[in-house]
Amino acid sequence: MSVTNFIQNNKDRFLNELLDLLRIPSVSADPKFKNAVFAAAEFVKESLIKAGADTAEICQTKGYPIVYGEKIIDPSAPTVLVYGHYDVQPADPYELWDSPPFEPVIKKTEEHPQGAIFARGSADDKGQFYMHVKAFEAMMASNDLPCNVKFMIEGEEEVGSDNLDKFVIDNKEKLKADVILISDTHMISMKDPSITVGLRGMAYMEVEVTGANRDLHSGTYGGAVANPINVLCDMIASMKDENDHITIPGFYDKVAELTAEQRARLNEAPFDLDEYKKKLKIAEVHGEKGYTTIERVGIRPTLDVNGIWGGYIGEGAKTVLPSKASAKISMRLVPDQDWHEISKLFEDYFRSIAPASVTVKVKAHHGGSPAVVSDSSVGYQAAEKAMEETFGKRPIPTREGGSIPIVALFQKELETDPILFGFGLDTDALHSPNEHYGVANYFIGIETIAAFFKHFKTLSNQ
Amino acid sequence: MSVTNFIQNNKDRFLNELLDLLRIPSVSADPKFKNAVFAAAEFVKESLIKAGADTAEICQTKGYPIVYGEKIIDPSAPTVLVYGHYDVQPADPYELWDSPPFEPVIKKTEEHPQGAIFARGSADDKGQFYMHVKAFEAMMASNDLPCNVKFMIEGEEEVGSDNLDKFVIDNKEKLKADVILISDTHMISMKDPSITVGLRGMAYMEVEVTGANRDLHSGTYGGAVANPINVLCDMIASMKDENDHITIPGFYDKVAELTAEQRARLNEAPFDLDEYKKKLKIAEVHGEKGYTTIERVGIRPTLDVNGIWGGYIGEGAKTVLPSKASAKISMRLVPDQDWHEISKLFEDYFRSIAPASVTVKVKAHHGGSPAVVSDSSVGYQAAEKAMEETFGKRPIPTREGGSIPIVALFQKELETDPILFGFGLDTDALHSPNEHYGVANYFIGIETIAAFFKHFKTLSNQ
Repeated sequence: MSVTNFIQNNKDRFLNELLDLLRIPSVSADPKFKNAVFAAAEFVKESLIKAGADTAEICQTKGYPIVYGEKIIDPSAPTVLVYGHYDVQPADPYELWDSPPFEPVIKKTEEHPQGAIFARGSADDKGQFYMHVKAFEAMMASNDLPCNVKFMIEGEEEVGSDNLDKFVIDNKEKLKADVILISDTHMISMKDPSITVGLRGMAYMEVEVTGANRDLHSGTYGGAVANPINVLCDMIASMKDENDHITIPGFYDKVAELTAEQRARLNEAPFDLDEYKKKLKIAEVHGEKGYTTIERVGIRPTLDVNGIWGGYIGEGAKTVLPSKASAKISMRLVPDQDWHEISKLFEDYFRSIAPASVTVKVKAHHGGSPAVVSDSSVGYQAAEKAMEETFGKRPIPTREGGSIPIVALFQKELETDPILFGFGLDTDALHSPNEHYGVANYFIGIETIAAFFKHFKTLSNQ
Repeated sequence: MSVTNFIQNNKDRFLNELLDLLRIPSVSADPKFKNAVFAAAEFVKESLIKAGADTAEICQTKGYPIVYGEKIIDPSAPTVLVYGHYDVQPADPYELWDSPPFEPVIKKTEEHPQGAIFARGSADDKGQFYMHVKAFEAMMASNDLPCNVKFMIEGEEEVGSDNLDKFVIDNKEKLKADVILISDTHMISMKDPSITVGLRGMAYMEVEVTGANRDLHSGTYGGAVANPINVLCDMIASMKDENDHITIPGFYDKVAELTAEQRARLNEAPFDLDEYKKKLKIAEVHGEKGYTTIERVGIRPTLDVNGIWGGYIGEGAKTVLPSKASAKISMRLVPDQDWHEISKLFEDYFRSIAPASVTVKVKAHHGGSPAVVSDSSVGYQAAEKAMEETFGKRPIPTREGGSIPIVALFQKELETDPILFGFGLDTDALHSPNEHYGVANYFIGIETIAAFFKHFKTLSNQ
């Protein structure tokens, strides 16, 4: 039986197994889901063994474990390393989900006429890394695995992959590969397949501003004692100028400026601003002056408040002058910004603009470096051919706004360029309520991955 | 038995009855405490009847009821109307209380060496209005009630007294009095008794800023789509200039400016800035340039964010670009600002500064007018003499930063100046965790109120 036929004949089972994985609420950011995160690791290990791996093991770290598995068909054959993550983002706010985040349901949408799986982690990244497990199983079952394959599926991607560096550095030999596949990004559309060749990095900070030592009555003290919320708003506002240019001294020093030609090419990607605004129900986009929307998310760094809280946030009115206000602030970075350096610049600036009437705390959550991957490597060519085969159209190389810090790590430590082989859509509500992943995307992904192995083998031998 | 002796002999009971009242969580802002608010009204009615009122009744309104009771000893005698409120502020955040907010405990503090009652509402306003009930009881029991007395104790003060206007207007004859006593303010200290003669008004707004129609991934969209938290921070920041002067057009148009002489007199009140900063653990005060701390809370309006929320506020990091951000913003007003007008100016300005990339909602919660009361009326003189008798020192007239919207209502509808006869301290943590009220303050208040009745009768007959 051919690989394609095997996939066709096992569609229901391939889908149901993914739904089982999605039922495990493996939220790495919240300790109350600890057992579920471990359970997800166990699920991945079992899946690899069932698919035909020689070995699969749960590798303990200081945090959540990394699942490693491999199938070596021939030491002289090319080797593919698959990276993915079995942890998911928190599902809050739960009340905005149309169905419970860990009880997957399949519903049709405008973008997914054949149905999409609604569940936290469906697109990011369970649905996507699991395609590789299933493609591997299909190739094994059809006696048609042309390359060696290694899997490294971690459980801390959504909280900064804190323990991955050490694992990669300690296991360079074990992880040695000719190409790395990561499906944790999206395509332009099913009609316009694309491969991500640029990713932004990130520095994620948490700040706290404290005024008086306790909450005060806003009548008795208001106007005379610093209000930490007003102060925090002032401080956040002062981090961008009227052109939405970030004001942190030194912030842009290392930003690689693209040539006019490079920018022109980037802007050739199909993009309909009216459609974009319509889908988000916004009257206007909002960003740095002098750049297009594609550039704002592709080649420019950002500073976004991801969360803010302070004072009374219940029903009705409470006239409190709070003691504290806090915010989570992240900056997306572009080549060649260094996230450690940017975290430090942020901290120094934040401290420098705090008035004497408050005290501040600044903490760096985690970060990751921006990355650009080659669009001419053998791996990229194989991916291009595989997509052309399954989608009937040559994929467009794009730059995506998100961050996968591991890309830079792999480039440095494993000296291999990953292929960002994502099959989701940007409307899939990643990190949001009602995250979903197209059923058709899942299956075309499995087929494309199998096709990649074939082309990679062929091109590697040329 | 004299009134003073009766108070002395019934101290334990007077205290325990107050503790019972404090055990009722009558939070008017939160519907889940609805039954408790009604129970508190019942408690007040029963207390008035037991103290010796001719009648006491629960008067229904569209919201929580007003308890009215009276004792008419002689239609020709002077009449005292007591106003207070049995509802309390929400107790959030609960985790910052050292003991549960509705389980009163008595503990000694630096400011209250004889002990203070820790409970939500102990100072604001249960402990304070209940002094009047107990003083009334003591005068009745001693056959020494020199004036007629009327009680009007409401249950919606902490949510804007929405239904009081109608009640007062509909019951002008019933409420007719020669003086109104309100104990809902504080004194400078036990050593420096004071009577409040000025109060700020308030306009309380709630705003919501919406960007895209759903939460987005901050990587995919960050930098290109408005972040409503950043926008809200910008908008809030732009409401004050570098001198902490409020920038809403027309905001200061009706602010009554004091003469240099009036300002000098105001600043004669005992005030130790170092002590003030030390108690609040702040390095610097923070307020409008050109004014002292006493002026900033006494004669200048404010704009304070009382609560802000948006995005992910749980543990760890979530890279969300939220759809919405909200804030509760209140402005303390001074004579002759009108709260309806200020609410409108705020709303117009807030809408005008919103960028086209977001939509905004603005809602006015409630408000109240600022007020100044006479420091030369018969009532004020009687209060002065009563305090001089019990504290051994003539009280200082002060202006307080808080708001009691009812003062302006009484002045207008009942044509009577209230006496703001407060016995709390500004360190009592009103509206904050660990609110408390001094046991000594409670008893000296009861004695002073009884002394007031005596002096008011004498001075009224002169």
